[in-house]
Amino acid sequence: MNDRFLRALAAEPVDRTPVWIMRQAGRYLPEYRALKERHGFWELCTVPELTVEVTLQPIDRLGLDAAILFSDILVPLAAMGLEVEFRPGPVLPDPIRAASDLSRLGETEGCALYGRVAEAIGLLRRELDGKVPLIGFAGAPFTLATYAVEGGGSKSFSAIRALLFGDPATAHRLLERIAVAVLASLRAQIEAGVQAVQLFDSWAGLLGPDDYDRFARPYAERILGAIGDAGIPRIYFAPGASSCLERMRTLPVEAIGIDWRIPLGEARRRLEDRTVVQGNLDPGVLLGSREGIEERTAGILREARGAKGHVMNLGHGILPETPVENALAFVETVHRLSGQGGEQ
Amino acid sequence: MNDRFLRALAAEPVDRTPVWIMRQAGRYLPEYRALKERHGFWELCTVPELTVEVTLQPIDRLGLDAAILFSDILVPLAAMGLEVEFRPGPVLPDPIRAASDLSRLGETEGCALYGRVAEAIGLLRRELDGKVPLIGFAGAPFTLATYAVEGGGSKSFSAIRALLFGDPATAHRLLERIAVAVLASLRAQIEAGVQAVQLFDSWAGLLGPDDYDRFARPYAERILGAIGDAGIPRIYFAPGASSCLERMRTLPVEAIGIDWRIPLGEARRRLEDRTVVQGNLDPGVLLGSREGIEERTAGILREARGAKGHVMNLGHGILPETPVENALAFVETVHRLSGQGGEQ
Repeated sequence: MNDRFLRALAAEPVDRTPVWIMRQAGRYLPEYRALKERHGFWELCTVPELTVEVTLQPIDRLGLDAAILFSDILVPLAAMGLEVEFRPGPVLPDPIRAASDLSRLGETEGCALYGRVAEAIGLLRRELDGKVPLIGFAGAPFTLATYAVEGGGSKSFSAIRALLFGDPATAHRLLERIAVAVLASLRAQIEAGVQAVQLFDSWAGLLGPDDYDRFARPYAERILGAIGDAGIPRIYFAPGASSCLERMRTLPVEAIGIDWRIPLGEARRRLEDRTVVQGNLDPGVLLGSREGIEERTAGILREARGAKGHVMNLGHGILPETPVENALAFVETVHRLSGQGGEQ
Repeated sequence: MNDRFLRALAAEPVDRTPVWIMRQAGRYLPEYRALKERHGFWELCTVPELTVEVTLQPIDRLGLDAAILFSDILVPLAAMGLEVEFRPGPVLPDPIRAASDLSRLGETEGCALYGRVAEAIGLLRRELDGKVPLIGFAGAPFTLATYAVEGGGSKSFSAIRALLFGDPATAHRLLERIAVAVLASLRAQIEAGVQAVQLFDSWAGLLGPDDYDRFARPYAERILGAIGDAGIPRIYFAPGASSCLERMRTLPVEAIGIDWRIPLGEARRRLEDRTVVQGNLDPGVLLGSREGIEERTAGILREARGAKGHVMNLGHGILPETPVENALAFVETVHRLSGQGGEQ
């Protein structure tokens, strides 16, 4: 059994640096695009057999050290009863804008959606049969609140900012409600068998550090703390929020994801090496030459030397335009260089 | 004559902290929206009488300490012959994607577009009659290259990243060409009478620090250095690039703009207080309460104490949804608190 991903997260020695790729099951893979011609995105997330197929597509092909459940960070919002469409970006036709909208949010206890995800996880564990560990995930409350209030992605994020700064009490009530749903999602995933979880705070970079401490960190902290008794590693990733790294230092996690806009060594210093780090190759590098991929991967492995632990990954999701052979070159380079004993 | 903006940029004592607002002439103003019903955006940028009217709209109404020419960061690309449309975001229907596209880029010497902008500047200086200084500006080469290659804004920025990492030689040739056009634009603006310039590197935050040093900083540096003999203050602003602040420290500028995602005090430490700082209120705060605006403005004034100099501004452009009275509350708060002698 390949357990180097779990060992690295436990700060134990590894034979070579484990590597997985955010969005490793996704549009850059021809076999994924083929499946997408016949099935909608949400179908892939909610029909267990399809979820299993998509999740497994990249594992053998790329030689990855972990599988990540194919799903979406917005699942808890859908489980709360908000309509979530993908066109192809997420659109929530009836956003939450005021206190009176909160009554539209339901409980997620025993919801069918979490049940279908759990079923996929059970099937996946059997299929993987210990080959590599399975990662579960969810969006963090601040990020989900941003989607719920904006009604999708945004350029200016005016709606969430108007709520945060104009009616912070309602913002906190919304965040509380979402935190309950996210925690329930992660607990259901853990019960079904995921062996690690990642919490994505994708929009936390919208906030200055003080507002991060007000609106993002406390809710992520509560969830990560609450699942601590499960004994599986927890990863927190807030891309674009490197100015808040000092504020992440005390989160109850085993690892912090680092985006590509900060050198891994500087991120480690700012985290005081208290946690394992995950990342941080610029996904754009995989659009370039094999030499560039090797050079920059080697650079990150050097910056990771002496870390509490290191899981290699990109600093953000793999770009749909990435040639598969470049993703493969990245994984091979990690294993080759870190296995020489000189880089790790 | 109100010269506190220029005095602050020269690190001289001021009676109170000068303040202006990025996009202060813009969609949050009803009188701007009224004009926009009759004229297109590009018309407002290129018909000198309209440019003058829009530029002056917020000055008296808000009590600002500087006017900024109403224009667009993409003017140098249009001057090079690239088609630039606004729908309403910028769209370049024929993007630059390969070395063979570079031949489509023309010289800007003596171009009519720069002439019309210069005419507006001349009219503005007469209209302002020394009341407040006039700021000119342009986009920095990396940012303009991003627009030229992506063909507009983007979510993933795959095209520019494919060029940077897949064909860096062509990327550098493109950046060289654009730098010449940007320098010509700023020189024409200075000759026409602007009293300060700001270089916007709006997409520099897309790059990690080493790539910032490779693709963004050298071209900004060359331009800022070349206009040094004009003797007017130079401001450089790269929002979202706070992880590169150490790399900006040695730019030949009088001031660095700071976005809202980093406390002003930390930005000053990372810049070693070598330059004046400009910013950095979260534009979202102007969507909230008057009390919030006052409290956070006071906080920034405190963090600016002891700086080489401070020009108050938002950390990004004012949001179109901002109530005018909140913009006014911001400006009044700056003047009231910084004029008490206790905050500056």
